[in-house]
Amino acid sequence: MKKVRDIGEIKLIENFMAIYKSSAHTIVGIGDDAAVIQGTARNKSILFTCDTLVEGIHFPKNFRCGYSIGWKALGAGLSDIAAMGGTPVSALVSLAVPSSARIDFIEDLIKGIESLAGRFSVDISGGDTVSSPHGIVITVSVIGTVNRGKEVKRSGARCGDKILVTGRLGGSIYGKQFNFIPRIKEAQWLVKHGRIHAMMDITDGLSLDLFRLVTASESGAVLYEESIPISKDAFKTTNPLESALSDGEDFELLAVTSDHEKLLKKWKNKKVPLTLIGEITKNTRKIELLDKKGKRTRLAPHGYEHFK
Amino acid sequence: MKKVRDIGEIKLIENFMAIYKSSAHTIVGIGDDAAVIQGTARNKSILFTCDTLVEGIHFPKNFRCGYSIGWKALGAGLSDIAAMGGTPVSALVSLAVPSSARIDFIEDLIKGIESLAGRFSVDISGGDTVSSPHGIVITVSVIGTVNRGKEVKRSGARCGDKILVTGRLGGSIYGKQFNFIPRIKEAQWLVKHGRIHAMMDITDGLSLDLFRLVTASESGAVLYEESIPISKDAFKTTNPLESALSDGEDFELLAVTSDHEKLLKKWKNKKVPLTLIGEITKNTRKIELLDKKGKRTRLAPHGYEHFK
Repeated sequence: MKKVRDIGEIKLIENFMAIYKSSAHTIVGIGDDAAVIQGTARNKSILFTCDTLVEGIHFPKNFRCGYSIGWKALGAGLSDIAAMGGTPVSALVSLAVPSSARIDFIEDLIKGIESLAGRFSVDISGGDTVSSPHGIVITVSVIGTVNRGKEVKRSGARCGDKILVTGRLGGSIYGKQFNFIPRIKEAQWLVKHGRIHAMMDITDGLSLDLFRLVTASESGAVLYEESIPISKDAFKTTNPLESALSDGEDFELLAVTSDHEKLLKKWKNKKVPLTLIGEITKNTRKIELLDKKGKRTRLAPHGYEHFK
Repeated sequence: MKKVRDIGEIKLIENFMAIYKSSAHTIVGIGDDAAVIQGTARNKSILFTCDTLVEGIHFPKNFRCGYSIGWKALGAGLSDIAAMGGTPVSALVSLAVPSSARIDFIEDLIKGIESLAGRFSVDISGGDTVSSPHGIVITVSVIGTVNRGKEVKRSGARCGDKILVTGRLGGSIYGKQFNFIPRIKEAQWLVKHGRIHAMMDITDGLSLDLFRLVTASESGAVLYEESIPISKDAFKTTNPLESALSDGEDFELLAVTSDHEKLLKKWKNKKVPLTLIGEITKNTRKIELLDKKGKRTRLAPHGYEHFK
């Protein structure tokens, strides 16, 4: 099996250049000092985000499926752009790779990136390829656009607003963490059809990410236990509700709105449900779980944290 | 000495947030799903680049000076933006760090980034912080702007053009690789005062980078051996000329122009010399070294390559 060291850097970058495609947005793509991307329209702002996956942390050592890693590395960035209500435009891929890495893994990884990029018309406009003494580290940076002043922050939730979530939560470890669809279309639909006061994507678990949102908004929240949409995969765990509340990497949208009735009525996406799961309260940084008997339990924010 | 594991992710990110500053360009900075940056003027394009530094490859394991690493990580990206003739605007910092890493190293690293960012009014608008099982890996992504159609690519060199270089080359290992000043102002001056047909920054050694430039331009080059500006540090090596030709990480500009006479006459920067070092020929992908006796020697492209 061919290794990176067998072909060297120049050939590796040539492989990248052959696979990467630029489209309408990219004026100068891979192969120059920087990519050149079309400027924005006058009424747009630029969204800018990056996400890093580390071998041995975000995926197991000697993981076989490069495609999944590429998909996820770009997908995390697209999900961030979605969560701001924007449209992704262009991405750069920075890859630190040991010379012992298998070429077919790297090629697969690039295919995963390319496949997801193609689905959302995102240009892979360049990147950086360097060697790594230990595992693979991949950072994907994404730029996108959003109508000026229309970016949806985490900080806009107001007491009485309702909390909506797309899709179903929990158990992403059984597959979804590597093949999720970034909710770009769903986020754009929400922003178009109602007043979304705050939004973020769920990456570290509902309870932890909601805690971040209410903290940014200087408010609190109540979650309706019975309404939380639990994924099929969460039922593979011993505590499906706990899994839905705290598993990371759902990459679903958490949206806070005063237009929930209109939005829920108009929502036609059969594959991706939109569910009312709670409301914003004035109890700063406090999240409660309300069960069907009307009992409230304080929910400590918990989910995936690094360095713990 | 405090380690990353002693304070955890949330505190580490809080440290970042306290140190990072956003200015005029950044509408939403660190702490949301993506940074929001002002859109471009109508006549501008966006420049987009990223650079990765890996512990054990780009700097030694357990290197003490975090400040240098931060400076270099951002500096490499700013140098890329300079080489396209643009102005840097905003950067994201992605940091993969072992839980055993020293907090003071990380804080120093952030200070290095902040210091260089401040010098060129670049916003540090966000990033990603993850754990790493082995060494530190840092990727800095930078966006900038350039007047539409005025980006300076590697591919525009024409037979008869002259080759200019800023600064002095070689021996960067003795310090300059960690404290270089990205040639943003010099690049902007060059683009403003003359027709620059091709430009790039020298990161992997003059001979290798010039080879890349002439390859992109489907041309060749002759270098005047006597004219190559050799740095003081290159004289610490056994072969200063060889050091100037092939050492990496000079981060100087290689600019190809038909306006060399005008540019050299007008150049007033005493600290950073501008030197005529050669010319573009029609011998595709061939670089020759011309000595003072008029003898030409073929120069094989050599410099820093990964995976070798």
